[in-house]
Formats: sequence, C-alpha cells, structure tokens
Amino acid sequence: MAKRKAYSLLWRTSRCLSNYHSLHSGSPHSIRRFSSGVLPNAVFQRSFNLRSRFYGSTATLIQRSPLFSEVNSDDVSYFKSVLGENNVIQDEDRLQPANTDWMHKYKGSSKLLLLPRSTEEVSHVMRYCNSRHLAVVPQGGNTGLVGGSVPVFDEVIINMSLMNKIISLDKVSGILVCEAGCILENLESFLDDEGFVMPLDLGAKGSCQIGGNVSTNAGGLRLVRYGSLHGNVLGLEVVLANGTVMDMLGTLRKDNTGYDLKHLFIGSEGSLGVVTKVSILTPTKLSATNVAFLACNDYLSCQRLLLEAKRKLGEVLSAFEFLDNHAMDVVLNKLEGARNPLPGMYNFYVLIETTGSDESYDREKLEKFLFGLMEGGLVSDGVIAQDINQVASFWRIREGIPEALMKSGAVYKYDLSLPLEKMYDLVEEMRTQLGAANDLNQEAYGPQWHP
Amino acid sequence: MAKRKAYSLLWRTSRCLSNYHSLHSGSPHSIRRFSSGVLPNAVFQRSFNLRSRFYGSTATLIQRSPLFSEVNSDDVSYFKSVLGENNVIQDEDRLQPANTDWMHKYKGSSKLLLLPRSTEEVSHVMRYCNSRHLAVVPQGGNTGLVGGSVPVFDEVIINMSLMNKIISLDKVSGILVCEAGCILENLESFLDDEGFVMPLDLGAKGSCQIGGNVSTNAGGLRLVRYGSLHGNVLGLEVVLANGTVMDMLGTLRKDNTGYDLKHLFIGSEGSLGVVTKVSILTPTKLSATNVAFLACNDYLSCQRLLLEAKRKLGEVLSAFEFLDNHAMDVVLNKLEGARNPLPGMYNFYVLIETTGSDESYDREKLEKFLFGLMEGGLVSDGVIAQDINQVASFWRIREGIPEALMKSGAVYKYDLSLPLEKMYDLVEEMRTQLGAANDLNQEAYGPQWHP
Repeated sequence: MAKRKAYSLLWRTSRCLSNYHSLHSGSPHSIRRFSSGVLPNAVFQRSFNLRSRFYGSTATLIQRSPLFSEVNSDDVSYFKSVLGENNVIQDEDRLQPANTDWMHKYKGSSKLLLLPRSTEEVSHVMRYCNSRHLAVVPQGGNTGLVGGSVPVFDEVIINMSLMNKIISLDKVSGILVCEAGCILENLESFLDDEGFVMPLDLGAKGSCQIGGNVSTNAGGLRLVRYGSLHGNVLGLEVVLANGTVMDMLGTLRKDNTGYDLKHLFIGSEGSLGVVTKVSILTPTKLSATNVAFLACNDYLSCQRLLLEAKRKLGEVLSAFEFLDNHAMDVVLNKLEGARNPLPGMYNFYVLIETTGSDESYDREKLEKFLFGLMEGGLVSDGVIAQDINQVASFWRIREGIPEALMKSGAVYKYDLSLPLEKMYDLVEEMRTQLGAANDLNQEAYGPQWHP
Repeated sequence: MAKRKAYSLLWRTSRCLSNYHSLHSGSPHSIRRFSSGVLPNAVFQRSFNLRSRFYGSTATLIQRSPLFSEVNSDDVSYFKSVLGENNVIQDEDRLQPANTDWMHKYKGSSKLLLLPRSTEEVSHVMRYCNSRHLAVVPQGGNTGLVGGSVPVFDEVIINMSLMNKIISLDKVSGILVCEAGCILENLESFLDDEGFVMPLDLGAKGSCQIGGNVSTNAGGLRLVRYGSLHGNVLGLEVVLANGTVMDMLGTLRKDNTGYDLKHLFIGSEGSLGVVTKVSILTPTKLSATNVAFLACNDYLSCQRLLLEAKRKLGEVLSAFEFLDNHAMDVVLNKLEGARNPLPGMYNFYVLIETTGSDESYDREKLEKFLFGLMEGGLVSDGVIAQDINQVASFWRIREGIPEALMKSGAVYKYDLSLPLEKMYDLVEEMRTQLGAANDLNQEAYGPQWHP
C-alpha cells in the first residue's frame, strides 16, 4: 500500500508538471493551445499578473479538449500538397519514437508527423492547423527530459529536422545565423573549423537542435562562462500560431530598435510560436583546456569552492559541475569503463574546467589555485587531467549520470533552478520522504548542478 | 542659404529621432503615451508585425495630443498627500535641469516633478495619472544623449532619485538586488568592497541610475566582456501605466518558469512601465587590470585587431574601444591636461583593457600579444600603461570625447548599432555630406565604438 502511494504521489507530481509544461515550460517547443484559435495576446493577458504565478502545484489530470479537431484525410492531402509526399509521415514505425520522450516517461498518440523544409512551409502548416483547430507540437531533437517535445494526445508533430542549413557566419564578430533544426554538435563542428564555439553545450548535443535549445532556454555546461541564451541569441525568426512570420533575425550585438520581442520566445517552449531561424553570438575558440576533478567533504565547501573559483580563475573558468557520492556510485556501477579519478570515496565531487588562450599560463594558474585549496582544507583531494583522454573520462562521469540512472530503472528527472544554498536541502528532504516508503528500492539522486 | 539648409536637415533628423525615441527608444525611461489610458496590450499588438518596423525616418513634428490633461491644483494636492510636501516639486529652479537633457539639445516644459520613495508611491502616482490622463516621463539620472529622459511638453516628471536603496547582495552568487534610483557608481563602490563589479560601466556612471541603464539597455564599456543586460538582469519590479506592480524580481541565474516578461522592459525606455527594482548578476572582481593604447593605419586593421584580441586575449579582454584622429584632435585641443600617449599622430587609435586574476601572467600575455601585432604590422605603434595614473589618462581620452565635443560647439550625437565593417562608411559619408555645406564649421566625429 505504501508502495502504491509513493508511486502515485510521484506520478501525480510529474503529470501535473507535464500539464504545466505543455503550456508554459518544460522542453523543446510545443504549441498546443494555440491552434484552437486562442491568440497570443490572450496568453499575454493571462500571464500578466505575475503576483499570482501558476507553479502547477495542483495535481490535475489533463483532458483532451473537444475544441480541437482530429486529423482527417483531407488534412493529410493538404499537407502532402504543401510539403510533398515524403515529408508527411503516417507510418507507425516512424511515429513511435516521435511520440515517445527521451526518458520513456511520456507517450503521445499522434497520427501525423510533418517535416517542413522552409519557414514558408511552417507558415502554411501553422495557418492551416489554426483554421482547422488542429493542435500541434513542434519538435526539435526530442531530447527534452520533461515531456515538452512529445504530444500529450494526438497533436500534429512539426518536426524541424529538415531545416538544418547554416545561413551565415560573420568571421569578425562571430555571429552565426542558421535554421532552427541544426543539431548543436554540427554547429559546434562547423564553428570549430572557423575558430569559434557555441556559447552552450549539453550532454544531448549529438541530437538536440538549436531551435529547441532556444525554445527551452537551455542552460547547459557553459552557462557559467558565456551566460544565458537571453544574452547570446541576437535574433530569431518565428512563425506564430496563425502562420504569421515574425522576422526578428537581427545580427547586431546590441539592437535597441523597438521592443525586443524575441526574448518572449526564448524559453517559452514554442507556446508562442515555432522558432525557424536563429542568430547567435558565438565566442572565439580558445585553445587551452584544463580539467580538474576535486572532492569536498560537505555541501558548504562546494559552494565556497565555487566562489573561490570565480575569484581566482574568473577569466578562464568555463565549467563548474557538481555531483554527490550517490551519483558517483551509480555511474561507477552502471557505466562501462567509468572509473573514479580519485583513489578514495568522498561525499561530494566537483569538476572544474578552465579554457584560455595559453596552455602553460592557464595550467599554472589552475595548479596554484588547487594548491591553495588543498592547503586551506576546502578540498579533500583533487587531480588535474594530464591529457585529452583524461579530460574525456572526467567529463564522462558528469555527462554519464542520466544514462547510468536510466540503466538503474525508472527515472523521474527534474530540471530545477534554485538558490544554491537551498539546492541540497531538497535532496536530503527527498531522501527522507522516500525513505518513509522503504519497501521500494528508490533513491533521490543528485542534484548535479551547474551554477 | 546652404547653411540654413544643412542646419535644417540636421534639426529635422534629430527631431524625428526624438519623436521615435519618445515612444520606442532613446535614453532613460519614458512613459508618455500610456497615461492616456492606452493599455500595454495595445502596444503589444501594434508592435507585433515586425515586418513593417517603424524606424522613424519620416521627418514629422510632434504635436501635443489634446487627449492629455493639464496638471491642476487638485492634482498637486493629491500628489502631496501621497508623497509629502517636499517630494512634489513645482519650483522653476529645480524643474529647469529636469526639463533639459544632458546635451542641452532637448527642452521640455514640465511644471511638476515627483520624487516617489517606494514602489507603492510610484504605483499610486501612475494609477492617478492614468485616471486623470496626465502624461508622465520617468527620469533616472537624466544622462541620456538622445532626449528620452526629458519631457517633450508638460509631462509630469517621475524622478527616481529617492529610490536608491541597496536591498541585498548574495555573496556566493554575486546577485545584487537594489532600487532603480541607485547611481551606477555607488553600486560599483558598494560591490568593490564585497569583491564584485557591476557588469556595465558608462562614462556617465557618476550620475546615471541602474533603472535608466536597464530601461535603455545601456551597453557601455564592459559589453565585450560581460555581455548585454538581457543576459545579466535576472529580475525586475515594474509599475505599469495603470499602477499595477509586476513582481518579476527573480534572483535565480536561470529561471524558466512561465514567460520571461522582464525582457520587454529592458531597453523599452520606460514606455511599458517604470522600473522600480532590479536584480542583477554581478561578476566577481578581478584584481589585475592592464591597458594598452594602440595606433592603426586603417579601419580594416582595427577590425582585424578586434578579432585577434578576442582570439589571443579572449578570457582577459575587458574593453576594446576605438576612435579616429578627428576625435583625438578634439580631445587634445579641448580637454585640459589630455595628451596623446603615442609620440606621433595616426589615423586610428584603439584602447585595449584586460582584466584578470593574476597581474604578471596577464601582463606577459598582453605584451606577447602586442609584440606579435607590431611584428605583423597590424599595429603601427603602441604603449602599455605603467601605473594607475597612466591607466586613467588613457581612459580619459576615450571617455572625454563627449565633453571635448561639447566644448567645441553644438553637438548632434547618436548612439548607433551597426555591423562593424559598415560603421566607418557612415562617418565618411557624413563628412562628404557635411563638406558640401562647407560654409559651416561642422564636422562628423567618431564613431567611437565598443563592440
């Protein structure tokens, strides 16, 4: 009985988050409500009173609204006439992965997946769906972890994969313009040759798309160095629910002309429109990377370590990642070839990466910094990667956590932003709560944070 | 006749920019249209079709709208009851500077200046003005250069100077929360003691206020290092035209809950609401600053120099400022004590500042970089500041340009964002245009840019 109750609690929490995300938050972009003729301004109005923010804390089950139509054969014919036969997918084998999220937690029942190749095609599709009251869900790489990129019911899936062209790169300013379906890793490779890097990096980079990154305001591993997408995205092209194309594709580092509406689309999960093109400021590539793997005894030391790293390594600090011994255990147990870079086991681990223009200066700086930490007792043990294989194996531990967790059983994963000093209280509270239902082999892992 | 024509052309251009700015752009925040009962959503709708952006290129004279009321004695009594006698200013001597912009180019005729001390007072004032159809203009430090912070006609001036409290600083994350009327330099001093810096710096820092900086999306001297305010501002509290208080005062590095409406208020010149509180991410202070002053023969070299600086100094580069020989001349002629750091005169000058955590490493890095530039011929001459006095005197040249220009006569100054490679074409074109009206002693200076 206790088992069922605990399960039910988790289930209801995740569904209500999903419900919330489908309109307001979550993962790669999703327009659901908008095809039913509700215009963006209505949502602006609803969201306007931020004093009464809706955090989705009531456990409600979602009902399919009868206001939405169902796809019929005339619709399919129309889409084929616009997109071509090959880009209108009804085949169950191809629909199945698009209906299922990356964590296998959410499953939709869409009967139709569309593959537009241009902004104009997206516009035609949106205008048509709006007029027919067909719900849609835009989908990027479908790597989101909170169910935002899969249908809830039978929404038409607008998959952006074919819009994967790089449009331009300004080699002086580093401003890249590309279509929304470009895969992050492909952009990274392209830029690498030109001496630039993307200002964000994610474990899912091999599949996730820049349009989804923008729509979910993905933070990722370089947030500490390059800041959020609100700072780096210089322009967007977006198709609204009624098919209107908004051209906000500026390529200026600063553009104070008129209202800066593009920010509304960054992180709004596609609920206001489908991102079709992105203009983004890419930092110059710096050649020297160093990675250290450190152990701390308590959570307070990890926080103090972050502050010290920002002060002493400020200009070269490019990543600061944290995990606890539970996360380390599951990686070591479940991930083939993973090994602890440190000889002993500790309560907390921190990965610090520096990126600069001069290998020897930067390394000396890092060594001096670590020596000071060990002397001061803030860090219990630590090691610096000696070559790129070690760099990769240190990162493998951090980036392999989601994979290791999935191999351990069902996973409920939340992407939270909390004040740093409160972050770990949540883990301890979760462990207490889950411990009460101790006939289940369940565990609260993490958080693995990046500040 | 030629003289009058040239003058008239300039005058009309500047007035039409001013007209545009009063609604859409310019300098410290200004609500003008909104007190007449036009609600924010109407503006959202108007701005929505960005395909037909309004750049204010038609030369129209502004007419005072008869829809606005004039301030009467009942209004004054009401304001005194809310704000207290001392904070309702009708004295001409005190109104005069608030009616005049910093460049003495625009002049309003407001009869009333209000000094609210709290968000609640701002809300009361706005609600009342809205109900009475009284136009208002919010005013920060009134240091804007494009007339956005002064009344066009007889608007009520809402001056934010008394809302100058620092609310909190999180010493781990560097997140500062303060009222909108805090002067930038005061925030900088406060942070300096705590080991942080503001992510923006302006020549006007001694007077300008953070609320005005946010409302104008001020870029300034640290943009190249810390990025735009869209990346650094984490939260805002804003009072809308009807008095509604929007609490978007988040203090999370990343907050994807709901729509991120605060961005609408960054750079929208107060036309959507009065910024009353700001939450901002402040970088940790780095102790080692080095400044170099360089000469280039042509504009292309300056652009290539920027790219090289980003690549080779990437992580320590904190400022990159450019001026031409015309700007240098006027500074040397008009500013007492200013002197050229270089022995000869050149076509272009670039100031490069690095800020890092280690004096000696950073200096070596800069010296190595400059040596490479001289060898490669990209730079004709250069010098590194040997002490803080030299640092100050190098910066004095760049920061003293507006002051030197004002001492030279009437100045029309525009804050433009253009693709770098096109920036100097504009100067040359302006010189050609002005040269045609050669019976006037007029000159196109600048641009002095920061990328």
